Amino acid sequence: MKLHEIPTPALVVDVAAMERNIRRMAAFYAGGPCLVRPHFKAHKTPEIARRQLAAGSCTGLTCATVGEAEVVAAERLTGDILIANEVVGPGKAARVARLAASGADVKVAVDSEAGLDDIARASRAAGAEVGVLVDVGVGLPRCGVAPGEPAVALARRVEATEGVRLRGVMGYEGHVVGIEDRAERMARATKAVERLLSTARMVRDAGLPCEIVSAGGTGTYDITGRMAGVTEIQAGSYVLMDSAYAKLDVPFEQAFSVLGTVLSRPRPDQCASDNGHKACSMDHGNPAVKDIDGAKVLFLSDEHATIALPPESTLAAGDRIELWPSHIDPTINLHDVLYALEGDEVVGVWPIAARGYPEQRAR
Amino acid sequence: MKLHEIPTPALVVDVAAMERNIRRMAAFYAGGPCLVRPHFKAHKTPEIARRQLAAGSCTGLTCATVGEAEVVAAERLTGDILIANEVVGPGKAARVARLAASGADVKVAVDSEAGLDDIARASRAAGAEVGVLVDVGVGLPRCGVAPGEPAVALARRVEATEGVRLRGVMGYEGHVVGIEDRAERMARATKAVERLLSTARMVRDAGLPCEIVSAGGTGTYDITGRMAGVTEIQAGSYVLMDSAYAKLDVPFEQAFSVLGTVLSRPRPDQCASDNGHKACSMDHGNPAVKDIDGAKVLFLSDEHATIALPPESTLAAGDRIELWPSHIDPTINLHDVLYALEGDEVVGVWPIAARGYPEQRAR
Repeated sequence: MKLHEIPTPALVVDVAAMERNIRRMAAFYAGGPCLVRPHFKAHKTPEIARRQLAAGSCTGLTCATVGEAEVVAAERLTGDILIANEVVGPGKAARVARLAASGADVKVAVDSEAGLDDIARASRAAGAEVGVLVDVGVGLPRCGVAPGEPAVALARRVEATEGVRLRGVMGYEGHVVGIEDRAERMARATKAVERLLSTARMVRDAGLPCEIVSAGGTGTYDITGRMAGVTEIQAGSYVLMDSAYAKLDVPFEQAFSVLGTVLSRPRPDQCASDNGHKACSMDHGNPAVKDIDGAKVLFLSDEHATIALPPESTLAAGDRIELWPSHIDPTINLHDVLYALEGDEVVGVWPIAARGYPEQRAR
Repeated sequence: MKLHEIPTPALVVDVAAMERNIRRMAAFYAGGPCLVRPHFKAHKTPEIARRQLAAGSCTGLTCATVGEAEVVAAERLTGDILIANEVVGPGKAARVARLAASGADVKVAVDSEAGLDDIARASRAAGAEVGVLVDVGVGLPRCGVAPGEPAVALARRVEATEGVRLRGVMGYEGHVVGIEDRAERMARATKAVERLLSTARMVRDAGLPCEIVSAGGTGTYDITGRMAGVTEIQAGSYVLMDSAYAKLDVPFEQAFSVLGTVLSRPRPDQCASDNGHKACSMDHGNPAVKDIDGAKVLFLSDEHATIALPPESTLAAGDRIELWPSHIDPTINLHDVLYALEGDEVVGVWPIAARGYPEQRAR
């Protein structure tokens, strides 16, 4: 199959560029002590995770949902799984406990006693032991217990609770990973992660175990990942990238795009293609147009991209057009497969096995 | 199964409210001459389409993609299908031709000679006859041939081309359907659709057939749908509604929401729940919070909604929270099933059979 035969809209991956991204990240962390724990939520695609793990410098995978962790286990990608999120809601703790009982080294984030009790109860019921990282709020207004004494108190509770095992702490400096100015990003990331590190020291000073200190993302992999005491970085986007991260000074290449077909050229300065926002997320803004100088997305609707063109462009109905999404995770989550390309040749059609909520499909 | 047992995030439908919406729309068009052609793209769910068709006042279904039309045919929802979109791109015309050859009365939108030639060639190759509506640009900057003489010229070409049959014209006043002020919406919709109607008259004056004049949406169903000469309205959102259309003076109820679970209450004035933008689209803005006075979505991230709460709220980790999406179509497109509720009882789990790109899953 060739590129021009792919039904559109569709996601296409430049395999060579992706492999370069994977090798760059592996080379950066080669020898440790900090390693990368690639975030599976970015692509939800077993074939990509296998290549990330095979490249080395990895310590397992990060997941955002229980459904992703179940796919990681079912596909035997790794037994070392961190669900970097609170596991709360109908059936979720029991599903994590089942993963642990089946032999996976599963760790979850906990930021409340209620959440802790829930996972511990399920873990005991399954005869398992689930690992726990205390989730420390380091500035992103979302989840996380306050750094310092409140986090230490929760760690003490974890250590005293049967069915779970305290493994360490995590924090996500998500409020700074996208800052374009490097000096400011570095200053603010350092300040945020220092809160996590000082909490880790307090946990150890209290005589509690804290082998894992997990943080970071693609925007801070070489800042947070160089701070003494951080043991792993939860980077995801680096492997395929997006136009938001491309604005930063990170050495990763745009390795995927949303392939579309021009449906209409109703006027010289405009066309409409079939890769709208059901194919390309816009939560981080409009996508960029690949390989057409002067072209710009005017707006996306459900099934259309309306694109401004230089009037001299010869683009016509039936021609291909590629968009670079502003945000990788939700864009990939819209599709069921990735078309892997070497040049114009489709060398694989990779299932996005953990797309959406796999537990809904298992019914 | 009860509401509190549904794994989150998940889409839940208030079946009674949905049925009232369906009956209201059917009652409005009862007796014609204009009928509703419910837009399948809004929900992509065969069970809902069946109920819309069973309520009467319908003339088949509208689809936005070939994949949706294939699901409509495979599920035997109706044989009367309008793909209200240009069918351009690898394999698409051939797939439409196969639907026509298998007996479906399929109509597609055409706005260029290239698009016409493509569908006609595929139709002849399949020994079929595909219906064509000339897609007329009525103001939305997207697809569509210019009203008046250019549209008539294209209609003439359709009539002269073997393998296709001219059925009429369509236009979508999408640039005005969301205007909140009714007088302005009415004035601008009337002006836009008058372009379509005058084009239809010119087509007939040229001795060409024009049995179908298709336009409209939920925001203009009672404006465009009352204009003499319009034969059908392509309304979709009315059946379940969203917070954007709820701002208009349309008599339809919010009948679905994105059910989530509170993961964390890190501070009195804020919580984080698990229904982020991978579960609830934000292309029309943030969702609203259902049933909690004073609560407001601050921002959505991939897997989290960060929500401002009145400090006196007792909401805690493990509690349910429901969001009303700002846009129905892309929100439903994120999920595989709808949980149908009567009160707190789950009375059905409906597959969103045409979610995403079904042709990718058929591989």
